Amino acid sequence: MAEKRIGILTSGGDCAGLNAALRAVVHRAIRNYGWRVFGIRDGSLGLMERPLDYVEFDLSLVTGDMLRLGGTILGTINKGDPFAYPMPDGSVKDRSQDFVDGYKELGIEALIVIGGDGSMRILNNLCRKGGIPMVGIPKTIDNDVAHTDYAIGFATALNVAGEAIDRLAPTAASHHRVMILEVMGRDVGHIAINAGIAGGADVVLIPEIPYTLEAIARKIEEVSAEGRNHALLVVAEGCKTETGQAVTTVQTGGENRYGGIGQYLAARLEKMVEAETRVTVLGHVQRGGMPSMRDRIIASAFGVYAVDLIAQGKLGRMVAWQHGQVTDVPITDVAGLTRAIDPYGTLAQTARGLGIYIGEM
Amino acid sequence: MAEKRIGILTSGGDCAGLNAALRAVVHRAIRNYGWRVFGIRDGSLGLMERPLDYVEFDLSLVTGDMLRLGGTILGTINKGDPFAYPMPDGSVKDRSQDFVDGYKELGIEALIVIGGDGSMRILNNLCRKGGIPMVGIPKTIDNDVAHTDYAIGFATALNVAGEAIDRLAPTAASHHRVMILEVMGRDVGHIAINAGIAGGADVVLIPEIPYTLEAIARKIEEVSAEGRNHALLVVAEGCKTETGQAVTTVQTGGENRYGGIGQYLAARLEKMVEAETRVTVLGHVQRGGMPSMRDRIIASAFGVYAVDLIAQGKLGRMVAWQHGQVTDVPITDVAGLTRAIDPYGTLAQTARGLGIYIGEM
Amino acid sequence: MAEKRIGILTSGGDCAGLNAALRAVVHRAIRNYGWRVFGIRDGSLGLMERPLDYVEFDLSLVTGDMLRLGGTILGTINKGDPFAYPMPDGSVKDRSQDFVDGYKELGIEALIVIGGDGSMRILNNLCRKGGIPMVGIPKTIDNDVAHTDYAIGFATALNVAGEAIDRLAPTAASHHRVMILEVMGRDVGHIAINAGIAGGADVVLIPEIPYTLEAIARKIEEVSAEGRNHALLVVAEGCKTETGQAVTTVQTGGENRYGGIGQYLAARLEKMVEAETRVTVLGHVQRGGMPSMRDRIIASAFGVYAVDLIAQGKLGRMVAWQHGQVTDVPITDVAGLTRAIDPYGTLAQTARGLGIYIGEM
Amino acid sequence: MAEKRIGILTSGGDCAGLNAALRAVVHRAIRNYGWRVFGIRDGSLGLMERPLDYVEFDLSLVTGDMLRLGGTILGTINKGDPFAYPMPDGSVKDRSQDFVDGYKELGIEALIVIGGDGSMRILNNLCRKGGIPMVGIPKTIDNDVAHTDYAIGFATALNVAGEAIDRLAPTAASHHRVMILEVMGRDVGHIAINAGIAGGADVVLIPEIPYTLEAIARKIEEVSAEGRNHALLVVAEGCKTETGQAVTTVQTGGENRYGGIGQYLAARLEKMVEAETRVTVLGHVQRGGMPSMRDRIIASAFGVYAVDLIAQGKLGRMVAWQHGQVTDVPITDVAGLTRAIDPYGTLAQTARGLGIYIGEM
Repeated sequence: MAEKRIGILTSGGDCAGLNAALRAVVHRAIRNYGWRVFGIRDGSLGLMERPLDYVEFDLSLVTGDMLRLGGTILGTINKGDPFAYPMPDGSVKDRSQDFVDGYKELGIEALIVIGGDGSMRILNNLCRKGGIPMVGIPKTIDNDVAHTDYAIGFATALNVAGEAIDRLAPTAASHHRVMILEVMGRDVGHIAINAGIAGGADVVLIPEIPYTLEAIARKIEEVSAEGRNHALLVVAEGCKTETGQAVTTVQTGGENRYGGIGQYLAARLEKMVEAETRVTVLGHVQRGGMPSMRDRIIASAFGVYAVDLIAQGKLGRMVAWQHGQVTDVPITDVAGLTRAIDPYGTLAQTARGLGIYIGEM
Repeated sequence: MAEKRIGILTSGGDCAGLNAALRAVVHRAIRNYGWRVFGIRDGSLGLMERPLDYVEFDLSLVTGDMLRLGGTILGTINKGDPFAYPMPDGSVKDRSQDFVDGYKELGIEALIVIGGDGSMRILNNLCRKGGIPMVGIPKTIDNDVAHTDYAIGFATALNVAGEAIDRLAPTAASHHRVMILEVMGRDVGHIAINAGIAGGADVVLIPEIPYTLEAIARKIEEVSAEGRNHALLVVAEGCKTETGQAVTTVQTGGENRYGGIGQYLAARLEKMVEAETRVTVLGHVQRGGMPSMRDRIIASAFGVYAVDLIAQGKLGRMVAWQHGQVTDVPITDVAGLTRAIDPYGTLAQTARGLGIYIGEM
Repeated sequence: MAEKRIGILTSGGDCAGLNAALRAVVHRAIRNYGWRVFGIRDGSLGLMERPLDYVEFDLSLVTGDMLRLGGTILGTINKGDPFAYPMPDGSVKDRSQDFVDGYKELGIEALIVIGGDGSMRILNNLCRKGGIPMVGIPKTIDNDVAHTDYAIGFATALNVAGEAIDRLAPTAASHHRVMILEVMGRDVGHIAINAGIAGGADVVLIPEIPYTLEAIARKIEEVSAEGRNHALLVVAEGCKTETGQAVTTVQTGGENRYGGIGQYLAARLEKMVEAETRVTVLGHVQRGGMPSMRDRIIASAFGVYAVDLIAQGKLGRMVAWQHGQVTDVPITDVAGLTRAIDPYGTLAQTARGLGIYIGEM
Repeated sequence: MAEKRIGILTSGGDCAGLNAALRAVVHRAIRNYGWRVFGIRDGSLGLMERPLDYVEFDLSLVTGDMLRLGGTILGTINKGDPFAYPMPDGSVKDRSQDFVDGYKELGIEALIVIGGDGSMRILNNLCRKGGIPMVGIPKTIDNDVAHTDYAIGFATALNVAGEAIDRLAPTAASHHRVMILEVMGRDVGHIAINAGIAGGADVVLIPEIPYTLEAIARKIEEVSAEGRNHALLVVAEGCKTETGQAVTTVQTGGENRYGGIGQYLAARLEKMVEAETRVTVLGHVQRGGMPSMRDRIIASAFGVYAVDLIAQGKLGRMVAWQHGQVTDVPITDVAGLTRAIDPYGTLAQTARGLGIYIGEM
């Protein structure tokens, strides 16, 4: 076989396990197939810029250290959708052709995209425009990519959130407080409900299920009546107020993280229950850091399998984890869908069985 | 509903997550159904002894601390199969009727058994003899219970083994050594292959796949030729010699752990490759300690669901994790089967794709 | 010896290692001296309330689990200074005599107080008023108690802060961001400077040393000029603006945590450097959770030694860690003093030596 | 100042924090003083071999990742004392002149040696022979270097040992077993006694204090009489039998680790107490892996200070940690001394105060 050249990029918010996936791709493509692998920097940007911004990988990348390193060595920066790219002068421009031209200039034959559902959709559109053979690898700490049980990054984020509850529980108990932990999850509650079960929360609020403040207050009083003088509440950042309003946030530091739903709940609940309330917004620590064993395994399996798909000419597919095995699905099946918590599935039923208030359908 | 009484016991080797399962059972049975729950001490022994050895659980057990506590507060001691119980005088006696009588004396209506495949088989036979309605919850760090993707304890054991590789990798590199890590896995290699992938091993030996010393030595030399001056080998304790012989072990401290397969491989390989070789036998640290988030979630889901099975009159079932959901299977389907690593499944293919030598079929 | 009775209480904010100290006191007092030990609930409150709120400890407390449990099983609640206690009707009342009367009612002969500098001062005044023999054990995650190198809780808090930087560093690198981590430290920067050195920060701001925004911006640009596209800034919550103003904070949830100095710096720096800036406020996770090995050792040493002081009739002393050994100092020497970071000591010089900007004297 | 050139090497067994020290040296020497820094590979070997084996460091080394990376990127291999070097033909040769010549060939003006007491002694002799200005940085997980409270690597090793006890405690309790943990410590018991206190051991055996098997058995029975059905024993690998005999070990894998003192105690105690006994030999995991925050701080402080000593012309000194500050002592004061556990110091008295049996003087 002539020397095949493939490209790979990481797109969207970073998470733990991306480098493990890069390592697996490099390992499989170079060692097993003898291909050349080009890492494109900063998501789609590396192909849009001139000169092209990329690095050619070699086997020096496949050390064990790459398994343990958080984030992505390729970088990932979101300056905007290439189809509607924000220009310095404030205008918006379709720069998708730059990406397609860059792809051709690099001279690669296929592109592996590691990204969440948003990145998958945009990159798929870019690739369709340019006739670029693409394979997707799902990653997102929110774990909301459709048709895959796990996306890279979720397992580590769950551990971080669970450890935070482990740390908050004793201080809540010592001070007889209601502790609120706000975790990531813009549209879905995977981190919140998993961490809440694992950490022993009393209340878990997720975007998928409506709630009432009265029911939360009642739960806290129930807990108190049973003799426990503290309570733990976990809330996904994407939750709205009990009437479905988005929480108005304080804009500072370019980010609307503070003054979010956790603060809102604290302010409201402190008037309803006789207890001090404290909020912890976990934030960016959920993204980074050394990947968990599970994320390393999933990322490695995804990386190897993605290269195999290219070798087999199966393109336009996204690698997926289903039933404990790697498989693949059409990328087009994934776009526009969100994998939400099933309000009557195992996690929700387990939470209810443990007496956790998770809202009412 | 009249006040139902159920019993629960933990049987076989301990692991992380057992208390989380007990907590979930207590929560669901007492809070949701208003039942009484009796914890039987030391596996089947608590029902065989007179007076009966048990504790009645109440809601004080359902604190978050139980989620975080390793081992089992009920204890688990293996003095032998009740059908062929070793007596102090050296004789063997069928004491199964003691168990059945104890069950009746306790006056419970169903029994939840948390155990591995061996315990599940014996307890199922005891329950059939006594007409005892039983529900099983699978636990074993080896993860070899049939028909369930996960048993309680595996996820934590994998983390411990993976962290050990994380610690051994830099010292192997610093000293240019071949490091051998012997992990648990009597009949199967779930811990070994998962930890090996997650930790970046070069060689993983599991009982399911034969190997040759020559191929291992060749792999070590390949690694060396690529410029890496060290190698990591993970081996499941149940692996045999390359010719299929069980490794003769040094009997000390009542245990045949030392002088096992790890030592054997070190002694043989040191003559074949030019490198210092060191062995670490991970041992009991894999069993105990604070459960991982995943083990807490699985254990909680299993505990809630097991109680629901009793409430629904679905008996003779084992709770199982399949396709990311809790479900149940007939206990009789599980007995005598072992869930092995598929030599051509995702894990084995991923390992091969990363260049790990895992033996040859 | 007649059966001596002593009391113990934990006062002020909770932290990791308090239970390890309680365990050591119980162990030493009951097992070695045959005394009785009474744990007083919720700081000074347990002696002020009628009926008295306390528990008698026995040896069941001295399990290893107590070493690993965060927070304090005695509880600690701050409703106010007993000398100026806020009453439900809004008035303020001197309730110090309630405390003294409670002490006498309990019939104990000495009191061990585990607390920070504030608690140590108030409790010392209470004890002087009542002629109560007192021994102090220093605890505070801020590590600012005078005359002791370590207070219980600091070592664990440092680990939590350091791990947060470990998690933020890769996401900062992946997204080319300036990451700001706000850690605890109202008056002193022990956590900030230690975590900043351990985690590889570029800038560390502590209340002890003034800084300028220009110098911070310059440091970030220097880092960027060297080819690193991200920077890490650690700031103690007690830092003021560059002109020495306290940061006006958004009051929500009964707490003025958000909108603090971290937010302030982010808002200012984002206008000065060309980089996205993100803030993480670590908050209460620094308080709780399983104590580090070091905190367990220090707490155990303090607990044993405090009991020995009472046995020797050395009262009015605070246990202290100096030069790697336990010793004791007069409580009166501690009150009103704060142990600050020496601007020319080992930590500050090390930080400067690593190129960290820590402000200018 | 003309461009000064210095060399640095790591010698002896690896440990966590070595790379953090290298990073600090590079940072200080290059960034602050504008020197050139040459890393010599594999201890003294890099200067003895021709061609010289070394790497010139630049600022790319001073990333935060180096803080987190275990082991030493310079490598460390012990082929023997250069003054009595074992040659391939079996003879022994004085190769010290090779080292001195190599030093001159490299053209450096001073040498920083990171090593334990053995390395410090040999390297000091080499440097005296060659008139080489040397500064030492102490490292050893055993923490037995004289005149310094801490050596690099100890804090991390203690954490690993303490976590192992945390994991063994629940499985000991579940199975009613006596668990023996053998930790590193050839001549001293720093890891053993610290981990034993932190983990809640019942017995701690260290080389500094003799013991009797009868007293150990009595302690186990006492614990049992108090209602606890399990016990934890921590032993330093360097402990001898109760009669002072070195334990004859099984030689396998080129290492005399197995069949050591832990196995010996298990075999003897199982005959004396009615309890199953299990041994865990912790081994090499104590060496490697990500350094603790404390080790990173100490290593950073040592590295900066060592460079400052050279800048000040203070040579023949070893950097030391005393009373919470970095200082320096003459290397000649350190050679031949061992920093042992004081049998009546804080640690020993704390252990006794917690009821731990630590032998009898």
